[in-house]
Amino acid sequence: MSRTAYVNGSYVSHAYASVHIEDRGYQFADGVYEVWAVRQSKLLDSEAHFRRLNRSLGELRIPSPMTDQSLAHVLREVVRRNRVKNGLVYLQITRGVAPRDHAFPNEIISSIVITAKSTNAELAEKAAKAGVAVVTMNDERWARCDIKSVSLLPNVLAKQAAHEKGASEAWMVDDKGMITEGASSNAWIVTLDGVLTTRNLSPDILGGITRERVLTLAAERQLQVDERAFSKKEVLEASEAFITSSTNLVMPVVKIDNEAIGNGKPGPLASALRKDYLQSAAT
Amino acid sequence: MSRTAYVNGSYVSHAYASVHIEDRGYQFADGVYEVWAVRQSKLLDSEAHFRRLNRSLGELRIPSPMTDQSLAHVLREVVRRNRVKNGLVYLQITRGVAPRDHAFPNEIISSIVITAKSTNAELAEKAAKAGVAVVTMNDERWARCDIKSVSLLPNVLAKQAAHEKGASEAWMVDDKGMITEGASSNAWIVTLDGVLTTRNLSPDILGGITRERVLTLAAERQLQVDERAFSKKEVLEASEAFITSSTNLVMPVVKIDNEAIGNGKPGPLASALRKDYLQSAAT
Repeated sequence: MSRTAYVNGSYVSHAYASVHIEDRGYQFADGVYEVWAVRQSKLLDSEAHFRRLNRSLGELRIPSPMTDQSLAHVLREVVRRNRVKNGLVYLQITRGVAPRDHAFPNEIISSIVITAKSTNAELAEKAAKAGVAVVTMNDERWARCDIKSVSLLPNVLAKQAAHEKGASEAWMVDDKGMITEGASSNAWIVTLDGVLTTRNLSPDILGGITRERVLTLAAERQLQVDERAFSKKEVLEASEAFITSSTNLVMPVVKIDNEAIGNGKPGPLASALRKDYLQSAAT
Repeated sequence: MSRTAYVNGSYVSHAYASVHIEDRGYQFADGVYEVWAVRQSKLLDSEAHFRRLNRSLGELRIPSPMTDQSLAHVLREVVRRNRVKNGLVYLQITRGVAPRDHAFPNEIISSIVITAKSTNAELAEKAAKAGVAVVTMNDERWARCDIKSVSLLPNVLAKQAAHEKGASEAWMVDDKGMITEGASSNAWIVTLDGVLTTRNLSPDILGGITRERVLTLAAERQLQVDERAFSKKEVLEASEAFITSSTNLVMPVVKIDNEAIGNGKPGPLASALRKDYLQSAAT
């Protein structure tokens, strides 16, 4: 089946979907994006993603190309046209096309691109049962990681370095030796006394929607939660660790820099929260 | 006259020139660029730009899509087809098109885009006679500013903020209170005892080609040069200041954060170096 993308007002064949060479997304990384997980053809945590999208657009002063309601309609239509039952829908909005100049153009017509793809849910469950490895590296990103911008080159380099070391994610370490987050996920540990710990919100990390949802699920389970910075040393002393993202949902982490975390197997809390998440999202 | 761009092997109408929505330049800012000044239809400092381009590509491990010789041919052809006598030629190379995933694709076919445009040399001379204003702001960029990547969102925001304050450039200040460089240029001062001062090369700044050329011209004039970090306080105590870039060449700076630098007029050294540059480049 051929895929369909939505680009600036039209549904087009994904293979031929294109943007102008002077789109500011291409020349300046002047744009934002969102990724929704799709389960049973439904967008998970739809509202929360819209809230974050509008925040990112607002911080960068990029005009929203349409209302949330119209956007939600198009997102669902792209999911439908691509027959995605389980998968992802990707949205990118940039500050449009203009003759190259760093400063904002006088007239801005934002560009919008939406794609969707199916993913293999069974493969994801298998990965979750095995757990994944992470490696640490210096956080070389800019000062506004709270904005979900397409300025992702440092994340690309970190993720690639992780893959070359046989890991699936890079945990980035700030200049105080504390872990900020993964290249495309939030980082969590469960301390020996059972406290769910993840970095507090600040310009140093992206406020993950799955992170937010897991905080709610943790509250429902009456777990103790601490939102604060933690170090690699604390990861190695933790009973378990995991990452959260729209793509990974809740994914147990069993190794850091090739050393086992806890007993080296997916922890019970990570697995329980993953189950909770899938359950809560399905309703 | 309609403009022509070169995109992945073809000369196409600029108005319709496009790249795929999954070009990694668009989704990840996973690419580099170069800008050559064109004078009398010739590319200025052509070799030096090629050297830097290849360094940027090497640092990011993006395969060069063609030899320097072929690339030089295409650059000149784009200049010719657009009848550019004085202006700019812009080149962008990205890690190509691939299904969205942070890590490098297994097979990489780099994308390449080249555009050219004429600029008004008289207008530039007029600006150089008046001098420009700069404002300082926090340097929020990533840790590898020595790579000329398209990950330019912080530069966009800095430049826009400068424009809104009536200045043409933002001078960025690191966490030690020292100026790194402009959003799209290198920063210079001339101290009261006549020492030409500009930040030393490091991952904190881009090694400007015009910066390099001005260092050579300064040596020919037997000027004293100091490559080191300097503060805003030193700018206000300096006798003159200027910026260098392919777009601006050597441009006197007469104001910082609305305070006059020196006597508030373009300095004699900046003006002399601009003349030297235009002369040396024309040969």
